[in-house]
Amino acid sequence: MKLDSIFYPKSIAIIGASTEIGHVGNDIVKNLVKQGYKGKIFPVNPKATKLYDLKCYPNISAIKSKVDLAVIVVPGGVVPAVLQEAAKKKIKGAIVISAGFKEVGNLDLEKQVKDICQKNNIALVGPNCLGVINPENKMNASFANIMPPNGNIAFISQSGALCTAILDYAQKLDIGFSKFVSVGNKALMSEADLFNYLANDKKTKVVAMYVEQLTNAPALIAAAKKLTHGKNPKPVIALKSGRTSAGASASASHTGALAGNDAAYEALFAQSGIIRVETIQELFDYLRVFTHNELPKGDRVAVITNAGGPGVLTTDTVILSGLKMATISDATKNQLKKHIPPFANFKNPIDVLGDARADRYEAAINILEKDKNVDSIIVVLTPQSMTEFSKTAQAIVAAKMKSKKPIVASFIGGHLVNLGIKILRSHGVSTFNFPEQAAKALSALTDFRYIKKEKNNSHFKFKNINKVAINKILEASHKRGQTLLPEVDSLPVLHHYGFPTLPSHIATTAQEAHEIAKKIGKKVAMKIVSPDILHKTDSGGVMLNVAPENVAIGFKEMMKKVKKNVPTAKIEGVLINEMIKEKGVEMILGAVKDASLGHTIMVGLGGVYVEVFKDVAFGLAPLTKNDALKMIAKLKSKNILDGARGQTVLDTEALIECVGRLSQLLMDFPNIKELDINPLLVLPKGDGVKVLDARIVLE
Amino acid sequence: MKLDSIFYPKSIAIIGASTEIGHVGNDIVKNLVKQGYKGKIFPVNPKATKLYDLKCYPNISAIKSKVDLAVIVVPGGVVPAVLQEAAKKKIKGAIVISAGFKEVGNLDLEKQVKDICQKNNIALVGPNCLGVINPENKMNASFANIMPPNGNIAFISQSGALCTAILDYAQKLDIGFSKFVSVGNKALMSEADLFNYLANDKKTKVVAMYVEQLTNAPALIAAAKKLTHGKNPKPVIALKSGRTSAGASASASHTGALAGNDAAYEALFAQSGIIRVETIQELFDYLRVFTHNELPKGDRVAVITNAGGPGVLTTDTVILSGLKMATISDATKNQLKKHIPPFANFKNPIDVLGDARADRYEAAINILEKDKNVDSIIVVLTPQSMTEFSKTAQAIVAAKMKSKKPIVASFIGGHLVNLGIKILRSHGVSTFNFPEQAAKALSALTDFRYIKKEKNNSHFKFKNINKVAINKILEASHKRGQTLLPEVDSLPVLHHYGFPTLPSHIATTAQEAHEIAKKIGKKVAMKIVSPDILHKTDSGGVMLNVAPENVAIGFKEMMKKVKKNVPTAKIEGVLINEMIKEKGVEMILGAVKDASLGHTIMVGLGGVYVEVFKDVAFGLAPLTKNDALKMIAKLKSKNILDGARGQTVLDTEALIECVGRLSQLLMDFPNIKELDINPLLVLPKGDGVKVLDARIVLE
Repeated sequence: MKLDSIFYPKSIAIIGASTEIGHVGNDIVKNLVKQGYKGKIFPVNPKATKLYDLKCYPNISAIKSKVDLAVIVVPGGVVPAVLQEAAKKKIKGAIVISAGFKEVGNLDLEKQVKDICQKNNIALVGPNCLGVINPENKMNASFANIMPPNGNIAFISQSGALCTAILDYAQKLDIGFSKFVSVGNKALMSEADLFNYLANDKKTKVVAMYVEQLTNAPALIAAAKKLTHGKNPKPVIALKSGRTSAGASASASHTGALAGNDAAYEALFAQSGIIRVETIQELFDYLRVFTHNELPKGDRVAVITNAGGPGVLTTDTVILSGLKMATISDATKNQLKKHIPPFANFKNPIDVLGDARADRYEAAINILEKDKNVDSIIVVLTPQSMTEFSKTAQAIVAAKMKSKKPIVASFIGGHLVNLGIKILRSHGVSTFNFPEQAAKALSALTDFRYIKKEKNNSHFKFKNINKVAINKILEASHKRGQTLLPEVDSLPVLHHYGFPTLPSHIATTAQEAHEIAKKIGKKVAMKIVSPDILHKTDSGGVMLNVAPENVAIGFKEMMKKVKKNVPTAKIEGVLINEMIKEKGVEMILGAVKDASLGHTIMVGLGGVYVEVFKDVAFGLAPLTKNDALKMIAKLKSKNILDGARGQTVLDTEALIECVGRLSQLLMDFPNIKELDINPLLVLPKGDGVKVLDARIVLE
Repeated sequence: MKLDSIFYPKSIAIIGASTEIGHVGNDIVKNLVKQGYKGKIFPVNPKATKLYDLKCYPNISAIKSKVDLAVIVVPGGVVPAVLQEAAKKKIKGAIVISAGFKEVGNLDLEKQVKDICQKNNIALVGPNCLGVINPENKMNASFANIMPPNGNIAFISQSGALCTAILDYAQKLDIGFSKFVSVGNKALMSEADLFNYLANDKKTKVVAMYVEQLTNAPALIAAAKKLTHGKNPKPVIALKSGRTSAGASASASHTGALAGNDAAYEALFAQSGIIRVETIQELFDYLRVFTHNELPKGDRVAVITNAGGPGVLTTDTVILSGLKMATISDATKNQLKKHIPPFANFKNPIDVLGDARADRYEAAINILEKDKNVDSIIVVLTPQSMTEFSKTAQAIVAAKMKSKKPIVASFIGGHLVNLGIKILRSHGVSTFNFPEQAAKALSALTDFRYIKKEKNNSHFKFKNINKVAINKILEASHKRGQTLLPEVDSLPVLHHYGFPTLPSHIATTAQEAHEIAKKIGKKVAMKIVSPDILHKTDSGGVMLNVAPENVAIGFKEMMKKVKKNVPTAKIEGVLINEMIKEKGVEMILGAVKDASLGHTIMVGLGGVYVEVFKDVAFGLAPLTKNDALKMIAKLKSKNILDGARGQTVLDTEALIECVGRLSQLLMDFPNIKELDINPLLVLPKGDGVKVLDARIVLE
């Protein structure tokens, strides 16, 4: 594996090794030397002769032995030259700690670094990072001076400064790591590369990551799925910051207005099977449960407590987290009654009563662990006068060691419960200050059971698509210098891509409008065509159910209204098509392009109230059929599609097909910046859907 | 004050004092003697002569001195006799620790206790409680063996077992209390009484409570408002368990189906100005911020950090918590530049950079504290190699002591940051493991600024209401043994209470239907009348826009459909009224009675999709106009009422009046168990509303 040179080098050169205490170039040599790395270490510093009892070299070439990894701490501008030298020396891995690249606007310098590494097949971490730690071989090639214990968590961080806080906090909680990587600017190596590597890393059971920005969604999703849906599935837990960064508020489409940048990430994580956490606390809570427990067989939780109030609070959080309270069988209840006074509560939560000593907890845990209706156990303890803190903790540890079911604990209190907590922690029982954390983390663990089993469906594939015709329309628009395609151009694009559209015509005069309507011979819908009007209804630019004989007068009225409401709008005419009579529900289907991730697809309740109810769901192109199904399942309006309250069942299949068609359209025409199909009328089951209105914005 | 006998007794008798170590009756005497209570202590135990060097008395009467408070630990059945004796002795307060009352079904015994105390004007805490602690006079009249430090938090708990956990955890966090009360079964003294007392308690600045069930909402709301909206407003923070307790799922109304028990509590807290927390962790987070900080002037937060990632994470939580990131003025930026390297980030969050020592933090805090655009400050610190933990903490403490603005801190890490955290904690700076907790708590503190200022409006008052006519309808229904009033009875009830209803008639044959429609002379709406059908549309029991000439055939069709769909339903006829032509939006207005709290009122989007979108808000009767306004403001459909997307502005005023009318109706006719007005058609502004359909269920 290419990244072995980063994590398992037999020899490391530190270019920019410094004799100055407190300097990063000194810290790294010290961390390698003092924290137990057994390979060869070559400090490179032309001005020094010795550093921590090691010989210093004036440059890389001066090192005669083979070097696997270069850790580079020289000033940013010198990095390309150092990498060239490293390439000459056939070094296979480089960690560039140095800053001064993309993060301060030096895009060219960063590109040089990337190109050299790419050309010479050097695996590159950074630049602008804290470094890499591999506790397995005690290699601390970073300037954080903590060597975490061996563990099964691979941690990937886009923030170097957060790494030191994570390492410090993890040490306090007895959390170990398999790999610890500060990825910095990700000039060459990204999370996707690490995912591919970690999928085969036997030491890694769980992957945790702190993320600020990701790129190339398709590659990332594919790599993440190797981890989360592979033969030996590994959960990936992500903390993503920048949730509130300003969205595309000045957008020309509904989709653009509703799809903030975070919606794209939310979709990315969902489609990858990545578990998203909201806070650092939650990240640690999840990590503790994931590292110490097997996946439960199901979602039924037994709660054991010595206090009623905390029992009820735990029940609340179990249910709110999406888990179920296990139903305790009569046989189990009878067993429990042998050990617990009869006036206790044998319905879940099982109240072992305030005067419970360790033996009562022990009996309850062992009995419930054997109950087939119990998938996992939360043990809650509060300090009462008879409570045995250490002995109860030991009983939990013993039960946990024998059991394949998740058993987690919450000892609520301060100094009194502290010793018990320490015993639990040091013996691999996940323990939490409060039961709500336990329930939430347990719920994530239980969910992963379903995530890893999800079918990894193939992508949609549609044939008989007339790309030539579409290209013609787009080119014509390009020639006119037009990026916003009006309905008259947008609808044909969709038509040629197999979307069911209505034949429609544009009228520029009342007379023309009358003639078009007469030809249609039925009631029509009239809509204003203007590049400056997004909200047609608001501007008075929509008339429905107009009889052919009233179309001419309607045209004049509409012009008057629109000119009054939006005096500056350039008006290109009125779009006229047959009024659809069939009953259906108006949905919206749209897309917006994110510069780094790609196209976000949105589906939801459409019509005039789309922004009132915001009942929409997001996905990231390309979508699998499973992704599209999950998007629609998230909608409240799903109930309407399913025929809620005695209404007609609608054609959800046809809607899903449209979602897929849109996903493929965006792959074929990536220069579509925004797209809105609104409304997309979903007709009764078997009757399909109809595109009633659409607009496309090109890059 | 009556409760002074509970909190400030000069002498205490413990009836049931025990010589047996580990017995509750021994613990209480020990806690009183050993933890510093300076008043007189009289252990009552006929079998003992001495206890902890105190003389024992065979019974209360044997005590010659005056006794202010009786703490009772005898078996439940003996408690009434002891209270009788206490009454004879003119004891003014009693804490009944003993169990065996309502909680095990002994309602009679509990009533005896209540009656004796009520009759003899004895303030009663309990029964079935842990006791009372007043750190001010070192009185620990409980069996929890922790004496918390003096503080400004009054803690009220409905769970005794939780108390010990809270005391232990609070001690670890250096949190003190002004009063600590385990209320037990609340036979006589409830939270409302404590609120009334604490409103005048100078030692109490914040009230915290753990609640499982509350009763008598009107009294509780009134008492809570004395605290939260009084002259000297004190925040009340409540943790309510049982959020997920099964609601009234087999309900006969939409309101009943949607208004779970928790919706009533949510409304109760909102109307009282009580701040609700979801978890024990949040309770402590809020308490720490509320006790140590003044209320901020506004919602603009400055974040100071030595790490980019945590800075972004903090920004996220600041905004998601409903606060704003302060805009830093140029003047302030220039000040900052004198102390912080120029390549730092001077836009909020202010990044003092990874190599920041205490002086840089100190300068940043002091400069930002003086900026008029900054209302509060969050200081974030991660352990980097140059970080000065203690000195930075000291700098924060010094700034906090000089400032009136809230300043809170989050030192993220483990052992490295620990000493800093201890310094902050012991000097009254609220500190959090993670910045997300800080932001959320700060947001609650900021919100309280608005809560306490809210106008305490008076209740709705309507005149010209025909209660006599309503009583006649209700009595007739009672005589028929009918609790579910059909439309033909429900609509007149509403009509006589001033709701705008449509004249409507019931037809039992096609011929009758035809005649009614002919008389109306316009298109009509037809709806099935059956006590067994809630979802009329689903059953085929609704026809709209029927021309008079088609009504007879419509009648027959409807009968056929309904009989097919709901063969067992008893059908009473078809309700016919004029079809409303005006454009409006269908809302729902309803109520459901909760056994302990009273009537929950629901308003929201109505029509057939009420349970699809669940866009509803809840209130608790009686409502003030401000309560009703706030309910409607919570709805997404508020945008529709306001004329979203170019639609007509609707008559929200008339809707609010209806909400108020319903609140008063429920006060006047408390035996209404459930009520649904669906749809309530809200017409364009000035045109009012129309009740199109309704049903009432009586107790």
